[in-house]
Amino acid sequence: MAESAEQTKELVDRILSVFADGGDTSALDPLLRELRPADLAEIIDRLDGDARVSFFRRVPPELRAETLSEVDEESWPGLLDGVEGAERRALFRELDADDAADILSELPAQEAREILEAIEPEESREIAALMRYDDETAGGVMTTELVSVPATLTADEAIGAVRSQGQEVRDFFTVYVIDEEGRLVGTLPLRDLIVATGTTRVERIMESDVVRVLPTVDQEEVARLIAKYNLVSIPVVDEFDRLLGRITVDDVIDILEAEATEDFFRLSGVDEEEETYATPTEIVRSRIPWLLITLFTSGLGGLVVAYFEDTIERMAFIAVFMPVVAAMAGNSAVQATAVAVRRLALTSTPFRPLRSVAREVVAGLVIGFVIAACIGLAGGFWQGGARVGLVVGGSMWIAISLGVLWGASFPILLHRLGLDPAVSSSVFLTTMTDIVSFLLILGSASLFLGGLL
Amino acid sequence: MAESAEQTKELVDRILSVFADGGDTSALDPLLRELRPADLAEIIDRLDGDARVSFFRRVPPELRAETLSEVDEESWPGLLDGVEGAERRALFRELDADDAADILSELPAQEAREILEAIEPEESREIAALMRYDDETAGGVMTTELVSVPATLTADEAIGAVRSQGQEVRDFFTVYVIDEEGRLVGTLPLRDLIVATGTTRVERIMESDVVRVLPTVDQEEVARLIAKYNLVSIPVVDEFDRLLGRITVDDVIDILEAEATEDFFRLSGVDEEEETYATPTEIVRSRIPWLLITLFTSGLGGLVVAYFEDTIERMAFIAVFMPVVAAMAGNSAVQATAVAVRRLALTSTPFRPLRSVAREVVAGLVIGFVIAACIGLAGGFWQGGARVGLVVGGSMWIAISLGVLWGASFPILLHRLGLDPAVSSSVFLTTMTDIVSFLLILGSASLFLGGLL
Repeated sequence: MAESAEQTKELVDRILSVFADGGDTSALDPLLRELRPADLAEIIDRLDGDARVSFFRRVPPELRAETLSEVDEESWPGLLDGVEGAERRALFRELDADDAADILSELPAQEAREILEAIEPEESREIAALMRYDDETAGGVMTTELVSVPATLTADEAIGAVRSQGQEVRDFFTVYVIDEEGRLVGTLPLRDLIVATGTTRVERIMESDVVRVLPTVDQEEVARLIAKYNLVSIPVVDEFDRLLGRITVDDVIDILEAEATEDFFRLSGVDEEEETYATPTEIVRSRIPWLLITLFTSGLGGLVVAYFEDTIERMAFIAVFMPVVAAMAGNSAVQATAVAVRRLALTSTPFRPLRSVAREVVAGLVIGFVIAACIGLAGGFWQGGARVGLVVGGSMWIAISLGVLWGASFPILLHRLGLDPAVSSSVFLTTMTDIVSFLLILGSASLFLGGLL
Repeated sequence: MAESAEQTKELVDRILSVFADGGDTSALDPLLRELRPADLAEIIDRLDGDARVSFFRRVPPELRAETLSEVDEESWPGLLDGVEGAERRALFRELDADDAADILSELPAQEAREILEAIEPEESREIAALMRYDDETAGGVMTTELVSVPATLTADEAIGAVRSQGQEVRDFFTVYVIDEEGRLVGTLPLRDLIVATGTTRVERIMESDVVRVLPTVDQEEVARLIAKYNLVSIPVVDEFDRLLGRITVDDVIDILEAEATEDFFRLSGVDEEEETYATPTEIVRSRIPWLLITLFTSGLGGLVVAYFEDTIERMAFIAVFMPVVAAMAGNSAVQATAVAVRRLALTSTPFRPLRSVAREVVAGLVIGFVIAACIGLAGGFWQGGARVGLVVGGSMWIAISLGVLWGASFPILLHRLGLDPAVSSSVFLTTMTDIVSFLLILGSASLFLGGLL
């Protein structure tokens, strides 16, 4: 194994270079065993189509299942094409049931059915059951492998039960405690089980205050609960409180990172599906739709300007202030939106939304006034007239205040409508603030400055 | 305890309303015991100054330490002002050493020293040692409480050792294995320890491939390692591989959320310190600096326009295309930047940065051409001249291509210079693309369209 994170990085880059350049890769096989599955997955995600498949074939068979479960889900179908027959069955036998279900959901239905038929019936039933849940719910993320003990056992008996059930279950840190009807009544961290005196009953040492979720709960909500209550795993139960599975914290980290990326991208008008290492064609396809929408909305801004063409002809200096007012209103709106979007992402239900919008608006009026005073004074002195200063400053004040009002309230409105608040992207906001800024400055100029010239 | 997440939310909102409105709060005390420390902390974070302090005094004493460690760090000094003398000492006795160190670092030096002197010497030494590390490093985040066993023990002996050492250590899932010199040689998840046969030696069942960090490693890097390798905790060692402490996954989730918020805010020109529930004054103070910078840079754009004032006077229709070109260039740049910033956040070292910029530029040329063709045709037909179409379309093509080039390369450049890539915010980028867009469209109009009119 590579000793340090630094060495691992170097090794990954070296292997990547050889594979990406299509050089002689035969000397690399011993190096691959130096890496962990997550590193191998990173290499796959960074390679392009063909190189990906040929690299995956070189991954040592005993590391393949775990590597596959770490790879970006877009790559799954391509990688599986490179593994056939007995090798493919072996791969699915190695995979955890929840990972297998995720991967099969990405394959064409016919292919998924064939694979399910080829593996052992018990395993296959478990995978098929997991496939019924929506990908992005607790049911879709959970694993069904877990260890549970009756509340009436002693600590020593429970350790014995864990020892025999635990052989088949990987990574677990908590034992679930159930009553005679199989209902979840508590959790018992392995630490507490070991530290307890051998004859103490499990019900005396278990935590009976258990945060649990139904399989239909959204994965974001699961992530929030785990993050908030510092859990390492959360049990999934049916409506009768019977244990269905568990979700562990490592899955939650992936969910949180994916959600953060999604919000980040949406706010910037990038398709959240855009791959980290996209080809130029993928980049164009992912970004053009947003830009065409922007072209249309900014075209509306252009129409406003066109309407005031003769105002501009008579006082060209006003064109100098147009972009300044628009930029300030746009940026104020983006700031307010970013705060609102992130707040909604972290807390889920807005507490007193009206009050938080009101705070933003008060702040917006103050911010707008400060900026308006600066630009109004500058404009007034430059053009030698208080009226110009008032027109420019007044437009700025109103434009910024409106920008902040929208920026703060749109995400909340979208959330109320059941839409993703992050759709209120900066792209959309700034074209809107552009239109209003142009209307304000050109309209007020033509109304109040016409007599001057 | 409140049974479901829904009930908890309702309870939190109910308590918040009473406290925020300054109503009679005496009836709430039994309700507070229904909540977990994380919920109590949420209430505190959402309340304003005075209400916060009076609420914290009402938190049941046995929940105070844990609640305090969950609260936003900005609130610490204020909350501690409300707790004096013996109560305060009791609070610090209850706190984990790493949380106590974090809280004391936020207090005035004199006050921190007094508290350290008032608590037990052993505890106080531990806290003081942790306070020496930078807040945002592995040393600043780690806890020193852990369980370690010699590699030569049998599994049964190790369980005995865990039982006696573990009494004093909360939440742990892994035992660290050390050699005679106290050097870390492996990790042993509690699951593996329980499942193992009693007479097997620890060195036979431990994981000897341990991802570890030095105390000086940045907390973001720690978070990335834990996320990448699906760890529940990571050991912190000195340069001789001797165990200093451990960092658990729940701390890492907080770090990841804070980093995502920071990047998200920076990209939008919001101070990353802005509180989630800020007052209008705090909002104004946090956002004005960025907006003044924007005012200055967008003023530069205004100067460009002013320079071409007579061009605009002669052909006012060109003012219609100015904001359209600027909006398209700006948004293309923001898209490219968002992707680059997030990629750097998730992978830390860019692989072949030149190649990824080259991909973006190729995509930018194509995207620019499509948009330029649309606007060029529209402009040409509207003004009835191929030359106008070429000037408008040509400016658009160059502006978008340059925007994408900058958007993609600035974050990488900043990363090379050791700065945060997210500083390349949309605010900064769009004012830059504004200036260039105005230069291109007004410059080319005055050069090539002058003869037309």
